Amino acid sequence: MGNPTAAMLVIGDEILSGRTRDRNLAHLAVSLTGKGIDLREARVVPDVEAEIIAAVNALRARYTHVFTSGGIGPTHDDITADAIAAAFGLPIGVREDALAVLSTNYADPERELNEARLRMARVPEGAVLIDNPISKAPGFSVENVHVMAGVPEIFAVMLEGLLPRLTGGRPLLSESLYIERPEGDIAGPLREFAARHPELSVGCYPRNRGGVLGCIVVVRTPDAESLAAARAQLEVELIRTDTQED
Amino acid sequence: MGNPTAAMLVIGDEILSGRTRDRNLAHLAVSLTGKGIDLREARVVPDVEAEIIAAVNALRARYTHVFTSGGIGPTHDDITADAIAAAFGLPIGVREDALAVLSTNYADPERELNEARLRMARVPEGAVLIDNPISKAPGFSVENVHVMAGVPEIFAVMLEGLLPRLTGGRPLLSESLYIERPEGDIAGPLREFAARHPELSVGCYPRNRGGVLGCIVVVRTPDAESLAAARAQLEVELIRTDTQED
Repeated sequence: MGNPTAAMLVIGDEILSGRTRDRNLAHLAVSLTGKGIDLREARVVPDVEAEIIAAVNALRARYTHVFTSGGIGPTHDDITADAIAAAFGLPIGVREDALAVLSTNYADPERELNEARLRMARVPEGAVLIDNPISKAPGFSVENVHVMAGVPEIFAVMLEGLLPRLTGGRPLLSESLYIERPEGDIAGPLREFAARHPELSVGCYPRNRGGVLGCIVVVRTPDAESLAAARAQLEVELIRTDTQED
Repeated sequence: MGNPTAAMLVIGDEILSGRTRDRNLAHLAVSLTGKGIDLREARVVPDVEAEIIAAVNALRARYTHVFTSGGIGPTHDDITADAIAAAFGLPIGVREDALAVLSTNYADPERELNEARLRMARVPEGAVLIDNPISKAPGFSVENVHVMAGVPEIFAVMLEGLLPRLTGGRPLLSESLYIERPEGDIAGPLREFAARHPELSVGCYPRNRGGVLGCIVVVRTPDAESLAAARAQLEVELIRTDTQED
């Protein structure tokens, strides 16, 4: 029985123009790995309703969960909530419960909750709110799609509130091993090792430390014992073994 | 006549597990914006051949260019070149021209070009090589798909060699305006401004500077004159205008 799976959908022109650097994918990836939910795919789409709808529908059909970031603020380019409602064919409007939490952010809600800010209380029918202790405007979940803010601090705090609700799996454990040999030297023995251990995920990433070529070998498995054994074995094999061709 | 369009495909388990933070998307986005090529979508997929093939085929059918990063090294988890060949239905093997450039990286190619390293000279039939002045192992283009390394320094230098070959469009120019008012206060006037100027792309991004809420309004257009006019107009409208509801 495998772990639950997930995809991330980053929404925003500013990421694709290079103006803003996304930080939420890396944060989500680390959080899900710790929870035993396997992040399998990520997409970045612009603030275009048809693109958001197409991506959400493709991803929600395929993975246990979809996490979105961006586009839930008060301005005209924040169209995520409406796009999600359209993707599910649900009605959307200002919801009393969302309005109640949003109001707590304003000393004088009657005056300060203008039309633009009210957009942040628009939530598709039947959605479950996701708490936002920082700026109050809530995120929400519709079925397996979890809609969160793009501002990294708010994305992180929303995720923290959301994750305990979700069923996790066996967290993937990993060990990294720095080998001070060029990647091409250990690739042969590493391939053999990976072939002998189909139950492990084995990756190799080159490093250049001040002109000295090395690489980081990463082994991943949910099983702590296999992981320790794999690491010990790799240390022996990669440090002593010469390349096959020698 | 619109600009050429593009998508990015980031390939690698290490991005989805959170072990490595992607830096190539942001670099590509900035470079393409400067060249007048519109980056419209990005995807991250794992080191799984079927996933790479499906993503490449979906993206290359839809956009003028597809830029990939990752998976072209010597180890068993580097499967991008074979996946690209399969996506196009092309034969792949060690190619003499790729081998010739790769060889220049080794003092004794006879001895050091082992089986693993030879993988880096595997290139689909008909592909055009992309130069790699750093570690020699080339990237390549097949039709509109440009295959580059995941190591950011190498990705950047490959892109630098590749971009002059591609036809650009009108670079999108942008102006940013910091407004020290909360996003919800200017959202009304900003929406009206955006509606009056459908030729401009107008975005708004909240900022919290030591507890003071403000936002950055970004206007984009390829036309320098419209941009200057828009900026001047926004300065007047957003700084003097009160919210609609006041």
